[in-house]
Formats: sequence, structure tokens, C-alpha cells
Amino acid sequence: MSLVVVGSVAFDSIKTPGGQVDDALGGSAVHFALAASLFTPVRLVGVVGGDFPTEHLDLLEAHSVDLAGLRVQEDGRTFRWSGEYFDDMNQRETLSVELNVLDNYQPTLPESYRDSGFVFLGNGPPITQASVLDQVDGRPFVLADTMDLWIQTAHRELVDLLPRLDGLVLNDQEAFLLSDEGNLVQAGRKILSMGPRFVVVKKGEHGSMIFHPDGQIALPAQPLSSVCDPTGAGDSFAGGLMGFLARHGSVDLASFKNAVAWGTVTASFCCEAFGVHGILSADPDGLRARYEEFRSMLTLEEHPAAMPR
Amino acid sequence: MSLVVVGSVAFDSIKTPGGQVDDALGGSAVHFALAASLFTPVRLVGVVGGDFPTEHLDLLEAHSVDLAGLRVQEDGRTFRWSGEYFDDMNQRETLSVELNVLDNYQPTLPESYRDSGFVFLGNGPPITQASVLDQVDGRPFVLADTMDLWIQTAHRELVDLLPRLDGLVLNDQEAFLLSDEGNLVQAGRKILSMGPRFVVVKKGEHGSMIFHPDGQIALPAQPLSSVCDPTGAGDSFAGGLMGFLARHGSVDLASFKNAVAWGTVTASFCCEAFGVHGILSADPDGLRARYEEFRSMLTLEEHPAAMPR
Repeated sequence: MSLVVVGSVAFDSIKTPGGQVDDALGGSAVHFALAASLFTPVRLVGVVGGDFPTEHLDLLEAHSVDLAGLRVQEDGRTFRWSGEYFDDMNQRETLSVELNVLDNYQPTLPESYRDSGFVFLGNGPPITQASVLDQVDGRPFVLADTMDLWIQTAHRELVDLLPRLDGLVLNDQEAFLLSDEGNLVQAGRKILSMGPRFVVVKKGEHGSMIFHPDGQIALPAQPLSSVCDPTGAGDSFAGGLMGFLARHGSVDLASFKNAVAWGTVTASFCCEAFGVHGILSADPDGLRARYEEFRSMLTLEEHPAAMPR
Repeated sequence: MSLVVVGSVAFDSIKTPGGQVDDALGGSAVHFALAASLFTPVRLVGVVGGDFPTEHLDLLEAHSVDLAGLRVQEDGRTFRWSGEYFDDMNQRETLSVELNVLDNYQPTLPESYRDSGFVFLGNGPPITQASVLDQVDGRPFVLADTMDLWIQTAHRELVDLLPRLDGLVLNDQEAFLLSDEGNLVQAGRKILSMGPRFVVVKKGEHGSMIFHPDGQIALPAQPLSSVCDPTGAGDSFAGGLMGFLARHGSVDLASFKNAVAWGTVTASFCCEAFGVHGILSADPDGLRARYEEFRSMLTLEEHPAAMPR
């Protein structure tokens, strides 16, 4: 079924202990779309300025990303973000944000997108995320991302959005903040009780946890011997997750767990190079091989009948 | 095959955000032995003072723990440790340590223990750990624990010990310290190159990683909705791991991975109550059920032939 992503398209300037890039192609919608496009075509909704180069548009289209929903505001500048990572790569500091064309942007779904069966709402104001859902026909499977800013400044709107979601992805610190709980299992279960069918808590190099009505599932991350740039890893994770679901068509718990595993493996590619270059280095064979390695890593034997004594 | 543990027997005074106990039965050898005894009988080597009550001896013996190697120093006091945990339960502060009878203690294996095929060297001075190996006949499977204190103050002796080990368990901070690496995969691989066949890095609530000659395996922890007291979790983990191996008899990579999973599940019981009460609440049926839950949580489907596109 068709998959649409609504999110940011950005120029990212990123500094890590290993290097630096300026004005690299980025943004939640871009990272998500390139990751999901490994599984299925993707429809993108976003906005860029007149400074957005044709080569980036060509790159996206070459990866089966439909740009009918990308608004080009010729007299504006594209959204810019810059940040720095430190030694442990789990900490990052935002150095500057230029909203530019993203300021007061109201996403509009082209008529051709309204039948999408899978919707990913990239991080953004909950009220804007809700307005996207008003434009979709039928009852799609909806996954949304959020962040501490909205939990703190748009709490009511976020809480109102939660029952309209099938899934919410957020990181562990955001889960503690949204739930006001200090134990992650309790945090996840509390957020689940606020509406979504699934809550996915991302823990970076420590993997993720899925909360569902009957329990919780912890999965590790793919072990990586070097992390070049984690920017976009969360959106690549969501892209692999939703790309798998949209291609697979089923959204039961078993499918969702497998989708999180595909997302985990997809995100591991993202971290291996700056910007979108990590995901662009992934091909179906490489992705399949890494998934199989991940699956095999987690395969345990049934306990022998006599075990334990 | 027979399993022997050499380590501390202690009175622990523990304070957590949820409560407090004083002079509770603890110590690495005790936590290990009670956990491993769920799988196989255990031989214990350690020392206590004249203040060690008969009821603790009876408890250990009732759990198939052989105390032929426990020295009772009638004119001494048992080792005492006190510590406090804070809100996130991953941080703990040692409030006081009284070595007492553990000061200058040289473990001696009774003649009846020398044929042990599996040896766990609980945390202690590497030179003392090495002296235990000199007392064992044949070539047992040896797992050792260590800590930051020995990495810093007995580095040479620890490095000398590593090639004599089949496995080393340590936590992530200790792995960074011992390897002088900042990435956990690189840290684990470097420690592996220092001698052991397996390195297991414990990450508390984030699970563990196994490093072996052909790669690395990340496993999550069992998700717990409340952690009462993590004291002894690492030794219970090692106890489940070695208990499984000793009962299973095989020490290849597949068995070792399953052993780490059994250790993970065993440790989850430890965290659920103060001191040894968590492990004492585990029975074979409960342990089997939790292992099966853990195994099933980690079971992923093989990728469909058409996935990804």
C-alpha cells in the first residue's frame, strides 16, 4: 500500500569527532524517504526554498520518491540545522536552527496522496501533524515522531493527537518526559495508555523497545564498530519500519516486531557515513544480509527439557 | 560437569529509593552460587567470620551449594559492604567497605574440588584469581569477573591473567577503561585480543554483548517494570550463564550465547527483591517460562524472498 511522509527537508551542517559537513542534504522527510524507498515507493510532503538544488530533487526521484507534495518556495531559503556530536556519539548539541521556509509551513497533501494507507508524521508541531491526518481518506496506519520541544510546549495538542495514532516513536528521554515516569517499562506503558496501539522507544546504540497492549519487546541495535554520523538514524529507523509494513501490508504485532528489526538494520547503514550517504550505500542485498545477520544473532535455542534442573 | 565459584561471602547493607536492608546475606560467591544452583550443584570457596549465622549455611546447603571450601574464621568478622542506589538504579555509590576476614585471604581449593570442569572467579585481585587456577587439575572452562579497581591498580596482573581465561565478564565502563577505547565494539574486540575466548560486556538494563573470535552478539535485558535492588545481578547473570554451561556440558559459541540468555533471565529475578530474595523466588518452572518469553521476544521471521524490493 502507498506510504506518505510529512516532514522536513533540510540542509544540515554536522560536526563530529571524526569530521564535518556543511549544508548536506538532510531533514526527517529525506532520511525517512530514502530509507523507506529500499522497500517501497514513497510520497513526500515538505517544503524547500529556491536555493534547493535540482540534483537533490533528481536524487530523490531516482529513489522512487514522489515529489508531487514538495512545495518549492522560490523566494525563500531551505530549512537549515547545524549540530555537533561529541566523543560518545549519544550526546549532540544543536548549534543553530534556521526555520526559513518551514516557519508557519502548513503541509498540504496533493489529491494523489490522499489514498495513502501508511502515513509517517515526521517530528513537528502536533497541531500540524493532526492537520495532515485530516487530509487523508479512509483510516491509514499512522506512525508519528515527536520531541522534547513539543512535549513541553504543545503538551495538550500532543496528548490530543495520541489516540489518532497507530504508533508513536520517541527516544527514552522523551518517553520519561512525556510519561513523568522514571522506569522505561512504566513510561512506555503509560504512553500506550494515552492512545497509540504501539509505542516504540528508541535507545540509540542500546536498541529499542516496543510497547503493545499485551507486553513489551526489547531489541538490541546492530553492533557497529564505528559510528560516523547518527544524524537521521531515527528517521531511517522509522523509514525502514514503515517501508517494511507498507510493502508487507500487515500491521499485526508479529509484523510490527519484524518491521522494527528492519528499521534497526536500516538505521545501522545511516550511521556509517555523513548525512544521507550511509543510507545511499545500502542496497537490497546488503540490507537482506544484515537483516539475516541480526535475526540469526537473536535466535536462541528452545530450552532442553531437562533445563534447568 | 562440576562447577566451582571463588568469591566473597558478605553482609550487605543496601539503600534504594524504595527501601533498605541491613546486614543481608550477599557477596559474589553467594549470588553466583544461588543462581547457578538453579541449574547444577555448586562448590563454593570463600571465607566468613564467627558472626556468620548457621541459618545462612543451611540455606546454601539446602540449595545444593557444597561448603567444603568455605573457611570459617571464628575470631574474625565477615566481609561487609554498604551501598546506595539512586533514582535511575544504574548508578550506585559504595558507602563503606569492611574487608575483615577477606583481608589477605588466600583461597584454597579442597582436594574434592580440584577436578571441577567449570570455574568462576568472582571479582577479586587478579593475582588471587590466578592462584585459584594453579590449584585446579586439568583444563577447566574458566570465567572471571573484574572491576575498575583492579584495572587501575593491578593492571599487569590482570593482563597476565587474561590468556588463562575462557571468558571475562565486565561492565561497559570497565571495558572502556581496560581497552582505552571509546566505542564498545572496538573495546570488546581489543579485550578479546588480550586473551579470552569470550568477552561479555554487561550493560545493566540495556542487556549485554558477547565478543567472540568471529564477531559480536548483542542481547537485550529482560524488560522489568520495577527494579527493587540490582545488587548481585552481575553475579546472578554469571551464575545462570555458568550453571547452564556446566549442566549442558558444551562450550561452543551457540551454547555460550544460550548461556548468556539464561544468565540474563536469571539476573532478572535477582533484581526483583532485596539481596538474595529475588533469586530465591525463582524456581525451575518460573525460570523456564521467563526464558521461553525471552526467546520468543527475540524470534524474528526470515525475510520474505521479495523483501526488500
